[in-house]
Amino acid sequence: ADIRNAQDYAALAPHFMPPAHYAYISGGSGHGQSVAANQTALAQWALYPRLLRDVSHGHTRITLAGEEHAHPLLLAPVAFHKLAHAHGEIDTARAADATDTCMIASTQSSYTLEETASAGGARRWFQLYLLPRREDTLDLLRRAEAAGYRAIVLTVDAPIQVANRRALAAQFQLPPDVAPVNLRGYDIAPRYAGNGPGDSRFFQGAMRGAPGWDDIHWVMSQTRLPVWVKGVLHPDDAAALRDAGVTGLAVSNHGGRSLDGAPSGLDVLPAIRAAVGPDYPLMYDGGVQSGSDLFKALALGANAVAVGRLQLYALSVAGALGVAHMVKLLREELEICMAMAGCATVADITGKALFKPAR
Amino acid sequence: ADIRNAQDYAALAPHFMPPAHYAYISGGSGHGQSVAANQTALAQWALYPRLLRDVSHGHTRITLAGEEHAHPLLLAPVAFHKLAHAHGEIDTARAADATDTCMIASTQSSYTLEETASAGGARRWFQLYLLPRREDTLDLLRRAEAAGYRAIVLTVDAPIQVANRRALAAQFQLPPDVAPVNLRGYDIAPRYAGNGPGDSRFFQGAMRGAPGWDDIHWVMSQTRLPVWVKGVLHPDDAAALRDAGVTGLAVSNHGGRSLDGAPSGLDVLPAIRAAVGPDYPLMYDGGVQSGSDLFKALALGANAVAVGRLQLYALSVAGALGVAHMVKLLREELEICMAMAGCATVADITGKALFKPAR
Amino acid sequence: ADIRNAQDYAALAPHFMPPAHYAYISGGSGHGQSVAANQTALAQWALYPRLLRDVSHGHTRITLAGEEHAHPLLLAPVAFHKLAHAHGEIDTARAADATDTCMIASTQSSYTLEETASAGGARRWFQLYLLPRREDTLDLLRRAEAAGYRAIVLTVDAPIQVANRRALAAQFQLPPDVAPVNLRGYDIAPRYAGNGPGDSRFFQGAMRGAPGWDDIHWVMSQTRLPVWVKGVLHPDDAAALRDAGVTGLAVSNHGGRSLDGAPSGLDVLPAIRAAVGPDYPLMYDGGVQSGSDLFKALALGANAVAVGRLQLYALSVAGALGVAHMVKLLREELEICMAMAGCATVADITGKALFKPAR
Amino acid sequence: ADIRNAQDYAALAPHFMPPAHYAYISGGSGHGQSVAANQTALAQWALYPRLLRDVSHGHTRITLAGEEHAHPLLLAPVAFHKLAHAHGEIDTARAADATDTCMIASTQSSYTLEETASAGGARRWFQLYLLPRREDTLDLLRRAEAAGYRAIVLTVDAPIQVANRRALAAQFQLPPDVAPVNLRGYDIAPRYAGNGPGDSRFFQGAMRGAPGWDDIHWVMSQTRLPVWVKGVLHPDDAAALRDAGVTGLAVSNHGGRSLDGAPSGLDVLPAIRAAVGPDYPLMYDGGVQSGSDLFKALALGANAVAVGRLQLYALSVAGALGVAHMVKLLREELEICMAMAGCATVADITGKALFKPAR
Ligand SMILES: Cc1cc2nc3c(=O)[nH]c(=O)nc-3n(C[C@H](O)[C@H](O)[C@H](O)COP(=O)(O)O)c2cc1C
Ligand SMILES: Cc1cc2nc3c(=O)[nH]c(=O)nc-3n(C[C@H](O)[C@H](O)[C@H](O)COP(=O)(O)O)c2cc1C
Ligand SMILES: Cc1cc2nc3c(=O)[nH]c(=O)nc-3n(C[C@H](O)[C@H](O)[C@H](O)COP(=O)(O)O)c2cc1C
Ligand SMILES: Cc1cc2nc3c(=O)[nH]c(=O)nc-3n(C[C@H](O)[C@H](O)[C@H](O)COP(=O)(O)O)c2cc1C
Repeated sequence: ADIRNAQDYAALAPHFMPPAHYAYISGGSGHGQSVAANQTALAQWALYPRLLRDVSHGHTRITLAGEEHAHPLLLAPVAFHKLAHAHGEIDTARAADATDTCMIASTQSSYTLEETASAGGARRWFQLYLLPRREDTLDLLRRAEAAGYRAIVLTVDAPIQVANRRALAAQFQLPPDVAPVNLRGYDIAPRYAGNGPGDSRFFQGAMRGAPGWDDIHWVMSQTRLPVWVKGVLHPDDAAALRDAGVTGLAVSNHGGRSLDGAPSGLDVLPAIRAAVGPDYPLMYDGGVQSGSDLFKALALGANAVAVGRLQLYALSVAGALGVAHMVKLLREELEICMAMAGCATVADITGKALFKPAR
Repeated sequence: ADIRNAQDYAALAPHFMPPAHYAYISGGSGHGQSVAANQTALAQWALYPRLLRDVSHGHTRITLAGEEHAHPLLLAPVAFHKLAHAHGEIDTARAADATDTCMIASTQSSYTLEETASAGGARRWFQLYLLPRREDTLDLLRRAEAAGYRAIVLTVDAPIQVANRRALAAQFQLPPDVAPVNLRGYDIAPRYAGNGPGDSRFFQGAMRGAPGWDDIHWVMSQTRLPVWVKGVLHPDDAAALRDAGVTGLAVSNHGGRSLDGAPSGLDVLPAIRAAVGPDYPLMYDGGVQSGSDLFKALALGANAVAVGRLQLYALSVAGALGVAHMVKLLREELEICMAMAGCATVADITGKALFKPAR
Repeated sequence: ADIRNAQDYAALAPHFMPPAHYAYISGGSGHGQSVAANQTALAQWALYPRLLRDVSHGHTRITLAGEEHAHPLLLAPVAFHKLAHAHGEIDTARAADATDTCMIASTQSSYTLEETASAGGARRWFQLYLLPRREDTLDLLRRAEAAGYRAIVLTVDAPIQVANRRALAAQFQLPPDVAPVNLRGYDIAPRYAGNGPGDSRFFQGAMRGAPGWDDIHWVMSQTRLPVWVKGVLHPDDAAALRDAGVTGLAVSNHGGRSLDGAPSGLDVLPAIRAAVGPDYPLMYDGGVQSGSDLFKALALGANAVAVGRLQLYALSVAGALGVAHMVKLLREELEICMAMAGCATVADITGKALFKPAR
Repeated sequence: ADIRNAQDYAALAPHFMPPAHYAYISGGSGHGQSVAANQTALAQWALYPRLLRDVSHGHTRITLAGEEHAHPLLLAPVAFHKLAHAHGEIDTARAADATDTCMIASTQSSYTLEETASAGGARRWFQLYLLPRREDTLDLLRRAEAAGYRAIVLTVDAPIQVANRRALAAQFQLPPDVAPVNLRGYDIAPRYAGNGPGDSRFFQGAMRGAPGWDDIHWVMSQTRLPVWVKGVLHPDDAAALRDAGVTGLAVSNHGGRSLDGAPSGLDVLPAIRAAVGPDYPLMYDGGVQSGSDLFKALALGANAVAVGRLQLYALSVAGALGVAHMVKLLREELEICMAMAGCATVADITGKALFKPAR
């Protein structure tokens, strides 16, 4: 099969994974409204080609919170890469290294953060989920620091696990050789169940263990690494997190896997950019499958863009090579859009580069 | 079959009822435009997740016109529960009791209001249709009072019966063991036929027997129970009813079963809220099948939300247990939405919690 | 088969006519864009039910340009009723008579205007096409006067015949027993062909024979009957025709059978009403198949509404009885909408009765 | 098969060409978003019929940048006509001649510009692509002048070739007898590859060879022929090109074959017209398949309209005769729209002739 565009990996993936794995990965929470919203939001924009501009000095380099990146594409934190390929995160890390891409390793990886770190390059960040006990969270943080991760991405948008109906229908279960190996030895049983009389298992259960502002401050006080917060969709939350001293934000609806019915991050990105000011670091993820998707998110206010599922799709098709190829294609597709839109640098990509047809 | 969401009962119901019953229940009047409008209206909204808020004291309790309810979900008045399950209203009442849910028993029930009352809990309201003769209406009202119903919901939006085309196509007929047993002994033959020369059977027939303002005043004068009016869609009608001293209103297009072509109550809810002021009790029904549907209606101005068809769907699948399970699921789905939207109480759910993607 | 709504005749008609006849009747010009626009335009509106209003004195009577009508529904001029049923216009006229409906007989009828007149009741209008020669047009007009037609409806929106692609694909041809019998003995060969050097067969052909302002004045000067003009879509044309002394206008895109790509009359009706003032007589036609369609057109500015295709559909299914039944159903459907919208008279039906959901 | 409308050639073409050729011609770049946008943009407009206007002096003649044309329809530059028919550009040129149509011969033609010129009539323009070496470009320009081409259309919107996925999927390759024969003897190997360390093959490759402002000035300085620029979509580019002294612009997204995701030229045409002023020559192309499409583009600001694919479709079906017939049909369809919209001349076609239904 011919692979011409990054998106082709999405079409091929179902042929390279057990159906239940594919259902789990591709699905979203509930009825998949927020998954669909991510695609609809991207599809409504067109790109203005611009003529005769000299972009022969063009490049995709960016500086993100002080750090240089070869291009604005990151690998979003995604759990259990082994579901897509036996080499799992090891291969993803190799591909990230080969393509100068920053990989954000998930707390819920199927190889340990140390294994992933030693397989990959220097550009690596760690996605942190708060564990029920602070001492465990701290240990995880210290291990990430020790393994050379350069930034912490604290994901706070999933205090409650909402079922993925497609995964359930396909009777998805973690296979025996796939587990959240980073968490071995920690006490990860939820501390609150909310099963007292009159209790809600959400309000008095899960939400009692959910991240709060004190956790944000605590994490920042425990590390010198830059701390990003992932999962922001409301401009007021964005402004408050910026005010709290967080390094940057990932505007994301968790790939439509958290609250079903949440808007696409793309639709709220301009309002969030307006709320945090022009210079505050924002990352976008959700539904990105092409260079023009990347371009649109950058134009609407993101400084960088992460892909989630597409990593696993490419990994399933061809392991490290697949991921590296997918990244290369996406980057080239972005370069084509930039060149044709007359944007020599990522900073040149602004809202003026987009056109919204009135339908 | 796995039931994960309240909505799953809607998908299963056709397998648990005779096709003609299902057609009658699921269908709407005419060509079903207003049934469809209810779903379209709900689907156009997204919910803003909010981060890091402490909702560990959260709960779903509300006070509705002075009465405490464990949650803002009611069972809408629905005729002939026996069509879905032999235990009919008896089982629904049991489920309502078990889940602290207020059941609004229909005038057109297939078990008597007294039977339903003795099967259920304390939280019960009675939906009243005006009968052709006032003495019969009064008798019905007195029986409802005697049976401990705590509020009257006077339905006024169906002065003319508009055919349900799907039911007709399926040749639906009431089976011999299903009848409007509450009405036994009353004279329910329409008093006006409109068949004089030049007469319209609607203007000079049905509409002559239709509820008028005098009936509203008369009902209120005959009972100490709170009187709600059900079936309001126009802000001016809402304001006039509030001015007339009615306790509260059910904003509803009768599940798309009255005037085909009527808007969804959801689309007019904000204007009605604006017309009646912030504190006047409003209930919403129409198309609700999930916790996020509930959340949306609450955010757009309702104080409580009722489900119609979903009761019968759950009843058909598993009797009392099904209804109780459906209510539990809906409530949990609402709690998840509230928790993730950072709303600790129903009062926290406002229009600011919603996002409308510009498409 | 059960017929519950006027619209059911549309569904049944294909089973009661040769496919080519059905293609000719149901189709529109070109690719059918304007046919589709008529339905889309109607579908975008919802109707506000209103509560508790006394409409027991309600009726559908209207006065149209000084003439009383039992209801605001007319039978639009439609060519060749024989294509639908051997009794053709004779049966339509009988049905119109039986239902107190004004039939607008087409110039291109398959029974003569005299035959149609003697079969029908007193309420009949004549649709006039200008013939190539004035003396023939005048003869036709005199015959219509003599046969007791009470108004002239001058159709001016079809100066060029645009092919009906569906009819062509079905190889439609007029059968031998169907012909424009009114025109026998007239010279109906087009007077202009536009085939000189550099000539366009449209500009220098058909359009040279097209109706002009002088024709409007000439027709009005030749008859004492009220003269309506049919086929208006632009507000400026409407205002000019009113200023010219025309009795009233039919806002119509000719059922999507003239310029393909013309807007639906419904979409332009409010602007035309605004242009001609509140009291000037306007008729609407295009896509009407139900009482709520009628209601919508009345609410948006029409004083009366005509149906085209539905006549032939009903005629094909059951002759005079079918047409009479269709009219009765439509009228009843209108009465239901009026009663439920709290409109006792047609004059009560205003734009305030409609709601347009923002999608 | 019956051919009634120009558009019918589009439906027939797949039966007259190898599938791979059809895929290459009909497809667009990437996922075909811009191809689709061209049709959506046209479909959203309706045309106002106008009544009773005298258009018997009507005609389609226009003056375009000082040159008289019998009608506002041009044949857009399209590569390799031999893919559609063995006679290729020769037959197209004959058809153009027979129908008084201006053919814009492509640099990438499959017969030489000299062969095409001698087959056709006097009204011919030449579409120029800049070649890697200026001396070759100049030679091509001189040949076009010598062969009697009357204007140069410099295409600048395709600095990067974006793959046509449908052509790739169909494994399209140029057959041995089809080649860019105009370029024989020139050095057409790209001068820049962008394969130094850290180089992008787009920024430091293709874009280094892309047309710049200096090229525009250089071409204008090398010829006395009027110079049009093709491929403009942004109003600022349009204004700058006008200021640079370019004769006129082709507003075009290259038939959706360049940047996938570019807007339709139709959607940006009004803004471009506003930017360049009322009198500056603008051509439109993209998606045009009917007279009403032509009319819409003229109404939205174009002075002339070109068709691309439809030429090849007609050519494939019936060679020169097909193209001539297609042009005749399109012109007649335009005349019908003009006549019915009351526009006697192309100048009468303005934005006021269009209606945009609010959906
Ligand atoms: C299978 C899967 C697992 C994920 N696991 C995590 C995770 O462990 N931590 C996290 O912050 N986000 C996780 N995400 C969300 C991604 O980081 C990202 O927000 C999302 O995938 C972006 O949408 P996309 O997949 O459409 O590109 C996961 C997403 C998927 C699809
Ligand atoms: C089968 C059926 C019977 C109903 N009977 C009554 C009734 O007797 N009285 C009443 O006020 N509403 C009745 N309704 C309307 C409901 O109270 C409610 O307005 C509607 O069902 C809400 O829409 P939903 O079914 O989409 O939730 C009925 C609805 C259904 C589906
Ligand atoms: C088969 C057919 C024949 C028609 N013939 C005429 C005609 O002779 N004169 C005329 O003014 N309109 C004619 N019309 C147009 C109708 O008067 C009317 O404008 C149109 O049918 C209304 O749209 P509807 O068919 O969707 O109701 C014809 C329409 C149809 C469908
Ligand atoms: C097969 C094909 C080849 C084309 N080749 C050229 C070309 O050589 N030069 C050019 O300027 N445009 C070229 N175009 C673009 C056309 O000039 C024109 O912009 C486009 O086809 C208009 O869209 P339409 O095909 O929908 O009418 C080509 C288009 C097609 C379909």
